[in-house]
Amino acid sequence: MTVPIHSLHNAQLKRLIRLRERRERLREGVFLIEGARELSRALSAGVPIEAVYTCPDLHSEDARALPWAGLLETGLPITELGRAAFEKISLREGPDGVLALARSEARPLPEPPEQASVLVLDGLEKPGNVGALLRSADGAGAHATLLVGDGLDLGNPNLIRASQGSVFTQPVVVLEPQAALTWLRARGFTLLACTPQATQTYWDAPLSGRAALLLGTEHAGLSAFWQAAADIHLTIPMLGRADSLNVATAGALVLYEALRQRASQQ
Amino acid sequence: MTVPIHSLHNAQLKRLIRLRERRERLREGVFLIEGARELSRALSAGVPIEAVYTCPDLHSEDARALPWAGLLETGLPITELGRAAFEKISLREGPDGVLALARSEARPLPEPPEQASVLVLDGLEKPGNVGALLRSADGAGAHATLLVGDGLDLGNPNLIRASQGSVFTQPVVVLEPQAALTWLRARGFTLLACTPQATQTYWDAPLSGRAALLLGTEHAGLSAFWQAAADIHLTIPMLGRADSLNVATAGALVLYEALRQRASQQ
Repeated sequence: MTVPIHSLHNAQLKRLIRLRERRERLREGVFLIEGARELSRALSAGVPIEAVYTCPDLHSEDARALPWAGLLETGLPITELGRAAFEKISLREGPDGVLALARSEARPLPEPPEQASVLVLDGLEKPGNVGALLRSADGAGAHATLLVGDGLDLGNPNLIRASQGSVFTQPVVVLEPQAALTWLRARGFTLLACTPQATQTYWDAPLSGRAALLLGTEHAGLSAFWQAAADIHLTIPMLGRADSLNVATAGALVLYEALRQRASQQ
Repeated sequence: MTVPIHSLHNAQLKRLIRLRERRERLREGVFLIEGARELSRALSAGVPIEAVYTCPDLHSEDARALPWAGLLETGLPITELGRAAFEKISLREGPDGVLALARSEARPLPEPPEQASVLVLDGLEKPGNVGALLRSADGAGAHATLLVGDGLDLGNPNLIRASQGSVFTQPVVVLEPQAALTWLRARGFTLLACTPQATQTYWDAPLSGRAALLLGTEHAGLSAFWQAAADIHLTIPMLGRADSLNVATAGALVLYEALRQRASQQ
């Protein structure tokens, strides 16, 4: 490795701190990946990594298990930081001493198979919810996730963290609503809106085949555009006092119900 | 209302800030409830409220809709705070000007009906996850939630917030593992452990009747005590790269599957 950088005023460190801001990420076309598990997923997904910053003093077991020798052989710049410097650039409590700088790349949406669930997230603003949905989409074998409406960039650190790196291993794109609708319609997707007002439960709705699950914010619900576009409205039974579930919970329930319906048809 | 308190050094305000600490909550036997929705749920559930602090300048629509006149009539002390003072005691970004002090009370576990899901949360440490599980338990009509092992107190502000007040409207108790097991066994519950190693899916496991769903931490899984106690081990299919779901997602999936199985048997 190279000589450790210890100064907290180093220009590289300042740049890393600046990149916490969405505006700076979009301007530079890069984003940060913190954590060994997240970097591991990004590497296996072929995310273009530009630099790695590491603090061996802070390494977790997962961090030590990263393919350090292989990374050095590729010529990737790996910079060792002192503990104080690393803690300055880390966004976490209890960092594991791994942070990478990666280049943002638009990834194409793969063509869907005959059985395909696609999540359409309409204006979701909480990175934790979107990240959790990506993690569930990975678990449920969803085909892709479309982020539509104003919302988040995929380089948001809390989104990356909540997804546990699933944001790298799955097809996820940010699209204008009309472009998303055109893509879905051209491929024969059934559009299923998850709304509290519906009468059909998600258990009774047909979720196999090509199914696009439309989820809006907990506060405002689905926008008029997606309400109008929906072929089927479905609801999740609410037996208690609350009138809605967390949107990440709702999405996981419907994704896994689609999987159950497909499995039971085989 | 009484004269506004504006000083940030007021002893009452200092006490409210101290009560963010678990130790202080347990010592005094009280906890804080922030937010109009949460206070509304607590009031309807009969939680003993000792005092309310309010900042009308910050009120949301929900906050204005609270039964202020009725609260004043009951003789409950309601203290109006200036914006700066309220923001000092608030734990939220964008507070809605409602915070209450409530007395902790051990609530008895009601006797379960023949069809009853109970969540057993083993050592869960993240208040957001426990709160989200309580919100899902409310939605799925679960009978009760048992917190076992070292973990959280029910007055944790992030737990209350993530539950959106469901922590007040549902039976939730903190129990020693043996006491929890004795309670469940005496009532004929089937104990179902959610573990990645199981071969039976949660779709195929019998979840109707009296079903206790055992969930451990994402990192360590279920403790040996609950592993040994389990009658059935079940798993949630993972089709992607990740090896587990968020624990709150996993719990919601199994709770709602129990509901689906019961509904399909009717």
